[in-house]
Amino acid sequence: MTDIENFWAVIPAGGAGTRLWPLSRKGAPKFLHDLTRSGRSLLQETWDRVQPLAADRVLVVTGAAHRPAVAEQLPGLPDDQLLAEPSPRDSMAAIGLAAAILEVRDPDAVLGSFAADQVIEDQAGFLACVREAAEVAAARDVVVTLGIEPTHPATGFGYIRSGELLDPAGSGTARTVEQFVEKPDAATAAEYLASGRYRWNGGMFVVRASFLLDQLAISHPDLAAGLRAIAAEPTRLDELWGDLEKIAIDHAVAEPAADRGLVATVPGTFDWDDVGDFDALAGLLGKGAKDGEGHDVTVLGDAARVRTLDASGIVVAGTDREVAVIGLDDVVVVDTGDALLVTTRSRAQDVKKIVEALKADGVDGVL
Amino acid sequence: MTDIENFWAVIPAGGAGTRLWPLSRKGAPKFLHDLTRSGRSLLQETWDRVQPLAADRVLVVTGAAHRPAVAEQLPGLPDDQLLAEPSPRDSMAAIGLAAAILEVRDPDAVLGSFAADQVIEDQAGFLACVREAAEVAAARDVVVTLGIEPTHPATGFGYIRSGELLDPAGSGTARTVEQFVEKPDAATAAEYLASGRYRWNGGMFVVRASFLLDQLAISHPDLAAGLRAIAAEPTRLDELWGDLEKIAIDHAVAEPAADRGLVATVPGTFDWDDVGDFDALAGLLGKGAKDGEGHDVTVLGDAARVRTLDASGIVVAGTDREVAVIGLDDVVVVDTGDALLVTTRSRAQDVKKIVEALKADGVDGVL
Repeated sequence: MTDIENFWAVIPAGGAGTRLWPLSRKGAPKFLHDLTRSGRSLLQETWDRVQPLAADRVLVVTGAAHRPAVAEQLPGLPDDQLLAEPSPRDSMAAIGLAAAILEVRDPDAVLGSFAADQVIEDQAGFLACVREAAEVAAARDVVVTLGIEPTHPATGFGYIRSGELLDPAGSGTARTVEQFVEKPDAATAAEYLASGRYRWNGGMFVVRASFLLDQLAISHPDLAAGLRAIAAEPTRLDELWGDLEKIAIDHAVAEPAADRGLVATVPGTFDWDDVGDFDALAGLLGKGAKDGEGHDVTVLGDAARVRTLDASGIVVAGTDREVAVIGLDDVVVVDTGDALLVTTRSRAQDVKKIVEALKADGVDGVL
Repeated sequence: MTDIENFWAVIPAGGAGTRLWPLSRKGAPKFLHDLTRSGRSLLQETWDRVQPLAADRVLVVTGAAHRPAVAEQLPGLPDDQLLAEPSPRDSMAAIGLAAAILEVRDPDAVLGSFAADQVIEDQAGFLACVREAAEVAAARDVVVTLGIEPTHPATGFGYIRSGELLDPAGSGTARTVEQFVEKPDAATAAEYLASGRYRWNGGMFVVRASFLLDQLAISHPDLAAGLRAIAAEPTRLDELWGDLEKIAIDHAVAEPAADRGLVATVPGTFDWDDVGDFDALAGLLGKGAKDGEGHDVTVLGDAARVRTLDASGIVVAGTDREVAVIGLDDVVVVDTGDALLVTTRSRAQDVKKIVEALKADGVDGVL
């Protein structure tokens, strides 16, 4: 694998992930954690993953509060390639800022956007998919999205409905995207899988920076102009940032461009997980091996401190305390210094309700 | 209620209670904790309970390690009425030491032994029962045990099978004890209840000190002689203590005396609980009221820090951490500074297995 010319990897590093509370916090969001027991945080793994494509051409966009932590985790990232958002303005502003800065540096720049909090194990499959997407994006006026092959009828992800091959005469696998569809119910998800036309939308885009901003300018001219103004005069970032429209890139560009027939997808066969909640985390870590002693509890943290008896599920051992779990199946125990969560894998989505309750009660210190 | 002449209350304060780990510890055993949310520890409640009978005639027997904590919790207890065992020698040595010391002080002394880790709410019922037991013990050569009226066919307690009235012509309710029986299985317990002849053995005895030691001398002459030698020369405590036989008072005196027809029981209608595990504690604290917000979780500790959603059971909030429990019924969560337990009420008895595992692994610091 070699570098792709003009290709920049953009890593948006944002989102606290309230469904992973109290492991993930405002102050220490998901992407800063080693959730895969690899010894590297999700952010570092994302960085590692794009190195073969764009070793010295990586931009990370994160909240101002997380800039020091990101800089510490990525010592190889030049200071001027770590962009700090003065406040959260959703994904369009974050990725758009990177696009506007790249457009100034290199009018032919192609960017690939890869969120910092996702897990992909099949590095070769990922690289091959991005490489083809970058070739398509460099040659054509399209937004290219990576279409992940579904392994099961997931109801927690959005889907991409693909159409015809973009280049029927060639060897490329890219297809047009007919539509992005929201998270389906179980029956609809099963139909999607059976049809063979649907792929998971992992939110990974490859696109020429200038084309992205031009597309944005059609439906959200003020936002596109604001981002380009900041790129032209970076000292005006604080002044202009607060007025930018708060919108997700899916709604601002991807869906409108798809309606215009200007989105393509390159099918990827690599695995992908956004580790959205503790059920997903337990599934991810529980793959393959079981822990010893006849039980089935996956431990994130120091497993030597966790004792179980007739239990299964996941224990996040985030302190130096001894943890004992007896007689509970598919349990989720998250032990941190100032907060403890006890639930089940099937109720993992409801963790956000506790976070809302804590917020409503003004107990912000643990969020 | 007035004092009973010559009556001494003996409070054995021992036993770590491994089934209440990690709330109860070697260093902070069950009896030092406020398990009833009354603002008083079980030891203090036991002290309070006997005050009307023997205000200035209370002896507490505890391990040397707990002497300072006991003295602090019971400021009204004279220093020479707080006996410290140099090492644990089981209940016969503990109560026998108190008996031997009382025998020297007062040859007619009647002692009542009331363990420091039990819960009784019906104070009037308890006092009336002890008063009658003390009258019987003062007048006759018998060991009098309090026979607690069973409220359900418990399998976790020993039972007493009672016989004829001790004084058929009088107004007393005391009966002979035919036999002490071990913890029964569920079917046997149900038979016991149906028969009307069985009572729970709460381990509370009332007996003349000298008669207790004389009975002990029949089957365990060395132990009785050792205890009397210590009482005669208290400075020899450390020298003689280690050689005393380690045996429970039930086996050393109560059962042999029952075989000799020398045990009586006074039926008590007061409630009684030995809070043997977290299931018992949850039952005790869960009586009557439910906590707010439509759930059914009882909190021991700061309830304001505990948030629940579709959960029932008990949370021991022993730290200043926020605790969240979602979607678990009859759960037991015990959150302490250096150890966390998560289990269910039905598995409460298995907590001792975790304690054994920690001990086997040499993790003594949390025991």
